Amino acid sequence: MKCCDNIDARMVDETSINLDPIQVGGRLTPEAMKAMIAWGDGYSVCDNCRKPFRLDYIQNPPLKDFHVDVAEWLGMAQARTIPGARRGFQQVAGTYVEKGDPVLIGALAHYTSYLSVELQKGIVREIPKTADNHITAEDTANRIEDVVREFGIAPKLLFIDHVDYQFGNMHDVKGIVKVAHQYDVPVLYNGVYTVGIMPVNGKDLGVDFIVGSGHKSMAAPAPSGILATTEERADEVFRTTQMEGDITGRKFGIKEVGILGCSLMGAPIVGLLASFPAVKARVEHFDEELANSKIVVEALRSIDGTKILSEYPRKHTLTRVDTTGSFDQVAQTHKKRGFFLSSALSKKGITGIIPGATKVWKINTYGMTRKQAEYVADAYLEIAETNGLTIN
Amino acid sequence: MKCCDNIDARMVDETSINLDPIQVGGRLTPEAMKAMIAWGDGYSVCDNCRKPFRLDYIQNPPLKDFHVDVAEWLGMAQARTIPGARRGFQQVAGTYVEKGDPVLIGALAHYTSYLSVELQKGIVREIPKTADNHITAEDTANRIEDVVREFGIAPKLLFIDHVDYQFGNMHDVKGIVKVAHQYDVPVLYNGVYTVGIMPVNGKDLGVDFIVGSGHKSMAAPAPSGILATTEERADEVFRTTQMEGDITGRKFGIKEVGILGCSLMGAPIVGLLASFPAVKARVEHFDEELANSKIVVEALRSIDGTKILSEYPRKHTLTRVDTTGSFDQVAQTHKKRGFFLSSALSKKGITGIIPGATKVWKINTYGMTRKQAEYVADAYLEIAETNGLTIN
Repeated sequence: MKCCDNIDARMVDETSINLDPIQVGGRLTPEAMKAMIAWGDGYSVCDNCRKPFRLDYIQNPPLKDFHVDVAEWLGMAQARTIPGARRGFQQVAGTYVEKGDPVLIGALAHYTSYLSVELQKGIVREIPKTADNHITAEDTANRIEDVVREFGIAPKLLFIDHVDYQFGNMHDVKGIVKVAHQYDVPVLYNGVYTVGIMPVNGKDLGVDFIVGSGHKSMAAPAPSGILATTEERADEVFRTTQMEGDITGRKFGIKEVGILGCSLMGAPIVGLLASFPAVKARVEHFDEELANSKIVVEALRSIDGTKILSEYPRKHTLTRVDTTGSFDQVAQTHKKRGFFLSSALSKKGITGIIPGATKVWKINTYGMTRKQAEYVADAYLEIAETNGLTIN
Repeated sequence: MKCCDNIDARMVDETSINLDPIQVGGRLTPEAMKAMIAWGDGYSVCDNCRKPFRLDYIQNPPLKDFHVDVAEWLGMAQARTIPGARRGFQQVAGTYVEKGDPVLIGALAHYTSYLSVELQKGIVREIPKTADNHITAEDTANRIEDVVREFGIAPKLLFIDHVDYQFGNMHDVKGIVKVAHQYDVPVLYNGVYTVGIMPVNGKDLGVDFIVGSGHKSMAAPAPSGILATTEERADEVFRTTQMEGDITGRKFGIKEVGILGCSLMGAPIVGLLASFPAVKARVEHFDEELANSKIVVEALRSIDGTKILSEYPRKHTLTRVDTTGSFDQVAQTHKKRGFFLSSALSKKGITGIIPGATKVWKINTYGMTRKQAEYVADAYLEIAETNGLTIN
C-alpha cells in the first residue's frame, strides 16, 4: 500500500492569483473555514437533532432558518441542501424521468446533466446552440415540437444553464421557460455559475427548479449545493417516503425519498451557512466583478491575433479565449513550447490555467480586487510583448 | 432573513466523553483536520486533474493510490469514494433494480437501504429478525423462496448489515451470502459500523459490494464513504457513460454513470485519505475497543433492573440497553423526570445520550481509552447508587 502517509498542504489561493474557471466562486470565506474547523466531524450537526428527525428541522446550528432563508433569497417556495449540483439534477430527473422518456438539454450543458438522464434510462434531445453560442427560446420551441413528433409526448423535463460553463454566455431563461410551460414541460435552472455570484430570482425567471453549487459558487466546502423549487413542485421532488416493511411494518416518518433522508452534514453544510451572509452581500456587487473582468478581457483583446469566443460585451466573469493567432504562434518556436505561457504566468504569481494550453482556454476573474485585475491584465500584456506579439 | 450571522463553535468531543452511537467512529484524526484546513476549498483536489479527467486518476493528492489501496484493504477488486453510504446504496440499487423488482433487506437495516429501493420503485421484502435479533441464513433462504413464489424471479439484490445500527449485533454475512449466491442474488454488505472499525475482508465474506461510511466509521468528514466491488460486478456498477448528444455528438469519456462522474472532492475526500493510515492501524486493535466496551457494559449490567438488549457477550462497541427497570424507575419520581440521567452524566462530562431517555437507549464506547471507560462505568454506578438503585 502506497497511500496516504504524507499529504502536502495545498497553497494555491494563499500564494497566487487564481484564474481557475471552476474554483474562484467556491473559495471559502474565513467564516466558512472557521465553521469547518469547529464542525468538521461529520455528525456534528446532529447533536441537537430532535423530532421529526430531519436535517432541515435542526435549529442549532440554524439549518432550519437557512433552508427558509435560501428559498426566499432565490424567490422559490422551498429549498434543500444537496451534496453537489449533480445530485440535484439526479433528484429532479429521478422524479420526472422514466425509462425511454425524452428530456431536453441545452447543448452547452455540463456532462452531469446528461448523465442524470442516462441514469434514469431517459433519452436526451439537445437544444442546439446558435452560431454565436446561445440557447434560444425559438430553438427550444422547435425542439419541443421535434420531441412531440418523435415520442408522441412533450419532454418530461428541460435543463437550461443560465450561464454555461463553456463560454460563460448568458441564455434567455425567461423566454425558454415561457415556451416550455406552454407544453407543461418543467424547467430545471442550472445556476451553478450564477447562484452565489449574481442575483437570481426563480419567480421572475419562472423556473420550476433551481440548482446551485456550494463549492462552485457559494464559497462553501464540497460537496454542497442547493435544490429549490416552487410550492407546486415541492410535493413531487421532495416527496416523503411511503415505504413500509412488509414483515415489520416499519415506516420512516417524513424522510424524503429523492434526497435519501438527510442530505448534507458536517463541514459542507455548516460552511454553506457560514458563508451565506457574505454570499448574499456579494451578489449585489456583481457589477464590480464585471468591471474587473473587463480590465483583463480588454487587455487580452488588445493582443493582436487574440479572439474572445464568449459573447461580448461580457455578462459573466468566466470567459473563453482563443489565442491560436497569438500565444500559440509563440509556442511554435518557444523552447518551452506551449508551456511558456503557464510558466510565465506562474512566475508572476498567476495560476489556474491549464499548463500547456495556448489555443483555446478559459479564465474566471471572479473575486479579484481591481488591483489584482490590473496586475493580471498587465501580466498578459507583458508576456505578449516579451514574446514579440503586437499590442493594438 | 434570520440566518446565519453567528454560528457558535461546537465543542463536544473537545470537552466531553462522547457516547453518541453514530458519532464516535467518525471523529476526525488530527491528520484529517489538518488536511481539511489545507484542502478545504471544494475544487482543491482538481488542481492536478489531467487526462482522462476523473477523480480516481488524480495523483496529487494521492487519490489514485488511495482508490487502489482501499480496495485491496477491503479484499475487493475496485473501490470508489461516494458522498455518504446512502449514495452507495443508491448507486447499487440504481444498477440492479427496476420498477416492480423485488429486493431483500434484513429487517434491522437502516432506513436509507429501504429508501434506495423506493427510489427505484422496487419492492422491499424483509428478512425477519429472530427472537434474539439476528438475521440468519435460514431465514434468508426462506424469504428468497417466498420472493420466487410471489414474483416468479429471485430478488435482484440483497442488503445485509454486518453489524446493525439498532442492536450492534453481528450477523452471519458469510452464511447469508452462501444462500443468496445459490440463487444468483448479489449481496450488498452494509459496513457502516465495521469498515474502519474492525477488519473487513469482502473476499472472505464472499460479498459482491461493500459500502462503508467515512463520517460514521473512517474518521473522515461528511459526506464521505466507500463503495467497493468485485471484478465481476465492477463493469456493471461502475459502468461508464454511453450517452451521446443527438445533435452535437458530444460524448463524455470515461465518466461513470452511477456515480455521476466525479463523486467526492475537497475536504471530505482529503480527510478520508489523511485518516486512512490511522484507520488501517486501528482496526487491528478492535479487541481493545471491545475490552473497554465490556467495562461499561458490565457496570450497566450490575445495576439491578437493567438489561442489555444487544447480543451478549458483545461483539461490537455499539450497545442497546434497557433501563426501564432501573433508571426509568428513578425518573418516575425525580424532579428532573427523565432528564435526570442525561443531566447527571453531563455534569460528569459525559455526552452523546438523548436527553430524557431512560427506557431504551444506545451507547457506543468506540475510541475511548481504558481510563475513560472506567470513568464512564463508575459514573453510571455512582448515578445509580445516588438514586437508590441496587448494584449487584
